[in-house]
Amino acid sequence: MLDSTVTTRTQDMLDSFNAALEEGDISRASALFASDSYWRDLVAVTWNLKTVEGPGGVSDMLARQLDHTRPGNFQLQQGELPTEEDGVTTAWITFETAAGRGWGLMRLKEDRIWTLLTALTELKGFEENRGKRRPMGAEHGAQKNRKSWNEKREAEEVSLGYTEQPYTVIIGGGQGGIALGARLRQLGVPTIVLDKHDRPGDQWRSRYKSLCLHDPIWYDHLPYIKFPDNWPVFTPKDKVGDWLEMYTKVMEINYWTRSEVKKASYDEDRGTWTVRVNRDGEEVILRPTQLVLATGMSGKPNMPDFPGMEDFKGTIQHSSQHDGPDEWTGKKVVVVGSNNSAHDICAALWEADADVTMVQRSSTHIVRSETLMEIGLGGLYSEEAVANGVTTEKADMIFASLPYKIMHEFQIPLYEQMRERDAEFYAGLEKAGFELDWGDDGSGLFLKYLRRGSGYYIDVGASQLIIDGEVKLVKGQVDHFEADSVVLSDGTRLEADLVVMATGFGSMNGWAADLISQEVADKVGKVWGLGSDTTKDPGPWEGEQRNMWKPTQQENLWFHGGNLHQSRHYSLYLALQLKARMEGLDTPVYGLQPVHHLS
Amino acid sequence: MLDSTVTTRTQDMLDSFNAALEEGDISRASALFASDSYWRDLVAVTWNLKTVEGPGGVSDMLARQLDHTRPGNFQLQQGELPTEEDGVTTAWITFETAAGRGWGLMRLKEDRIWTLLTALTELKGFEENRGKRRPMGAEHGAQKNRKSWNEKREAEEVSLGYTEQPYTVIIGGGQGGIALGARLRQLGVPTIVLDKHDRPGDQWRSRYKSLCLHDPIWYDHLPYIKFPDNWPVFTPKDKVGDWLEMYTKVMEINYWTRSEVKKASYDEDRGTWTVRVNRDGEEVILRPTQLVLATGMSGKPNMPDFPGMEDFKGTIQHSSQHDGPDEWTGKKVVVVGSNNSAHDICAALWEADADVTMVQRSSTHIVRSETLMEIGLGGLYSEEAVANGVTTEKADMIFASLPYKIMHEFQIPLYEQMRERDAEFYAGLEKAGFELDWGDDGSGLFLKYLRRGSGYYIDVGASQLIIDGEVKLVKGQVDHFEADSVVLSDGTRLEADLVVMATGFGSMNGWAADLISQEVADKVGKVWGLGSDTTKDPGPWEGEQRNMWKPTQQENLWFHGGNLHQSRHYSLYLALQLKARMEGLDTPVYGLQPVHHLS
Repeated sequence: MLDSTVTTRTQDMLDSFNAALEEGDISRASALFASDSYWRDLVAVTWNLKTVEGPGGVSDMLARQLDHTRPGNFQLQQGELPTEEDGVTTAWITFETAAGRGWGLMRLKEDRIWTLLTALTELKGFEENRGKRRPMGAEHGAQKNRKSWNEKREAEEVSLGYTEQPYTVIIGGGQGGIALGARLRQLGVPTIVLDKHDRPGDQWRSRYKSLCLHDPIWYDHLPYIKFPDNWPVFTPKDKVGDWLEMYTKVMEINYWTRSEVKKASYDEDRGTWTVRVNRDGEEVILRPTQLVLATGMSGKPNMPDFPGMEDFKGTIQHSSQHDGPDEWTGKKVVVVGSNNSAHDICAALWEADADVTMVQRSSTHIVRSETLMEIGLGGLYSEEAVANGVTTEKADMIFASLPYKIMHEFQIPLYEQMRERDAEFYAGLEKAGFELDWGDDGSGLFLKYLRRGSGYYIDVGASQLIIDGEVKLVKGQVDHFEADSVVLSDGTRLEADLVVMATGFGSMNGWAADLISQEVADKVGKVWGLGSDTTKDPGPWEGEQRNMWKPTQQENLWFHGGNLHQSRHYSLYLALQLKARMEGLDTPVYGLQPVHHLS
Repeated sequence: MLDSTVTTRTQDMLDSFNAALEEGDISRASALFASDSYWRDLVAVTWNLKTVEGPGGVSDMLARQLDHTRPGNFQLQQGELPTEEDGVTTAWITFETAAGRGWGLMRLKEDRIWTLLTALTELKGFEENRGKRRPMGAEHGAQKNRKSWNEKREAEEVSLGYTEQPYTVIIGGGQGGIALGARLRQLGVPTIVLDKHDRPGDQWRSRYKSLCLHDPIWYDHLPYIKFPDNWPVFTPKDKVGDWLEMYTKVMEINYWTRSEVKKASYDEDRGTWTVRVNRDGEEVILRPTQLVLATGMSGKPNMPDFPGMEDFKGTIQHSSQHDGPDEWTGKKVVVVGSNNSAHDICAALWEADADVTMVQRSSTHIVRSETLMEIGLGGLYSEEAVANGVTTEKADMIFASLPYKIMHEFQIPLYEQMRERDAEFYAGLEKAGFELDWGDDGSGLFLKYLRRGSGYYIDVGASQLIIDGEVKLVKGQVDHFEADSVVLSDGTRLEADLVVMATGFGSMNGWAADLISQEVADKVGKVWGLGSDTTKDPGPWEGEQRNMWKPTQQENLWFHGGNLHQSRHYSLYLALQLKARMEGLDTPVYGLQPVHHLS
């Protein structure tokens, strides 16, 4: 349904909201929200990523923020009409604050605001030079001794980090560091991205050779330059690498390759970091104001320590070190673990004629890729979505507008559909002895990703090998190693030339412990997860992903990363926070998250 | 005006056209065309780039082509309604032929077809894998010993040109060779692009340092990947170079750097070329079926031979060899010529504090860049055009739909506007002694470009230096050189440390003479120009650009190039012609152009 009554009703709601905000009438403003409502704000009002709940939450937040951030002028977005379906009215909106402009998505239920997403898009006076504001390139007219674009770029490369200090240093140059680097470049925030590899994209190139993105292309775009429409649905890893490399170049990111951070420390008095870098053998000291860890949301590899490992005659690798099956044809390989990497690695080893056994230690959630694409992502990220006018940017906002608190309610029915559609497939896996789960509450893959970042496999073929017994499956826990084998708790002996420990990763603050100090790592606490009180995501409820893309308990330290979708979308909000601080804007943070868990 | 009557009337015309074509009634079909009409066909019906005029021209063409190419099913393009303005109805259309599908633009005047553009977009059964047809990337399921994307690419690089022959070789890897290489890759035509430089993009990087594109960004996109919206309006040359380099990589073009063609010859019996290549010191013989010269529409540098040049103590460079002003600070430089390169080079030398004199040998057409952007290109290629829904692809088609024969009629009023708007500027130039022209018929820059590819400067600042006397201007012809100077016919002596000969370029078939033979160069004849019977574009009227992107008198030899706009748009039609031949489709060419001029 799409009629003028809906538009009028929505406009009336926005008018009431604007009037209440304008008059500083917080109780009237919060009374517009339903009792089970959620206002999710991305930097615009809270200078934080924050979801407040119900009129009480709105009231508390506005009491702290309204006076200085001054949100207002909420309007229906030009060219977009509100729609109504099943009693819920959905409207694209725009608004302003004292410092910036934003857009968002509002849902009304029974004439109250049910969900409200407000996202900052730009800071007033610091708008990006895009479209009509793009630079001229050639400066017309003649000036004595002017520098060409190339000379200016070269001069910048020579001076930045040496005679001039960057405002921001990003440690880690994967998709996260690159997307953020591009946004900061656009915003005029002097930034250096540090990465230990030889070339941008080597983060992907260096991994096991069968690796492809498990997320489809429509979900994977970087900011500013979209993948062309000839790009494969699931990009092979080396092709991802090439894209990141070219992107880094053409977006003019100051990207230092072969640059490893030895140590970083924060001077509370001066408010700057000291970052000691080994740049291809040369020690360089950087003194940025802001430090961003974009070292991978997976955190540091978890490498378990089993008795006898030191006497094992074969090779032991963490999955992140495994670079493919080529050396292992005809050899015996045990892969410990049953998530994405374990499956990919097992399949590639089987393809290269290795004798492969997977050790499943705990239940795993499996969804077939085609099914996930169709049922899980199709409405937002697909060729059909694009044809329906759901641009990547809109899809990101729609996704961001679903409150984490109730997201499982939207997800559970989708996964029930998937389970039914692929019943035969799941029966086959169970018959093969594979232990399946659907998440603690049946909400499936995406919530597992948000809550714990692990515990699933998007099936692109390995499951059939398990079903067919081509990849052998053993359930149990590793007890110890012997010279030529892995021995499980039940006494099962698995002979092995190679053992791949697909045993996952720690929390990102493990990086902070290594690079900065255990003290800072503990001050910041666990990174990732929602506090959902489900497996590997202990409560209390946080409402947003812990420490990601937002202020932490450590001044001027930030965490950035995630999949390509998150790297694309959330890099904007982190970039705006950094820009605002560089420009000296007042950025009082509402609801800085307390620390409940150290890792 | 936009009403249903217009739609009905246009639909009726298409129905009549379809019926006549269907029934093979050529006289009825051609009677639908106005007496002063133009049907421009890009490969769809004629397997050529061809404009036929009036009912007679249409009738002649259909008599030869209708039976086998079978154009029909002309429809209004979905989602586009015809518009009427000043008595002209304009409609976006789609159609089919026996071999392919196409789209186009039709204009009706007094219920007859006035202009018709038909452009082939794809061959049936050989559609590009884009959008919904994009490849999967990851092949789901497991297969023994499968190759990764990277392994396949590496294997291709090793075999193509050695154990497997490419179907097409493109000589020249600037924007022309790259755009065509990308399209052929997409169409599955095995192709190697040969270029003598170290890296793709060096064609731009190696030129004088102040060089920027004189055409604005909206006009410059390559196929498949558009420049992002932070890209400058006028791209600096090194940034163009970086973009071309990354594009070559991510579009997976088989691009051989440091590869110079020594000789190419055609074996009429076998129907293949033998191309002898020096690939970074190694001799490689390629045996493609098709050979494309994409060596630059400018052709070979014209280096005049003046008495005394051999005794000149300073440096003499052709403008294409000049790499910037840095060595010439405080030195005397004479630049012979007054077109684009001459102006750019003079301004950059002045900026570096050289003592610069321009020698104007003949009148030059000058338009200020801002004015050209606003009045000349704004409707089709600008931020406003994009906002109005005129995509680059649509703009290309609108531009292509204006028949060359009457294009000057559309252009003259625009240039009259420009002359008026910038009257003061032109008065200043004339006062400084600069000899101006507006083209033989006052039709200005774009027609000069199409007719002769020279004779103009898009002012980005050098003209003010001429007006102010900062760059000295001398009119006349070079007579001879002395040890320290250039002497003009009137006896004027110009002392010089450096003489830059901005004396232009020859016809592209000069490259054919060098790379193949004078015989083939003469068989093919002059390249570029319309036969407009204006300066440097002798008649008779050809109706299309000579020899560009279409079959030539030499079997399996093609010319490709031009600015970024032409490289983008016409590479499609050349690629489809090559693909059709590779697949063995019947491609009877209508109206192969006769040769009237050898160079």
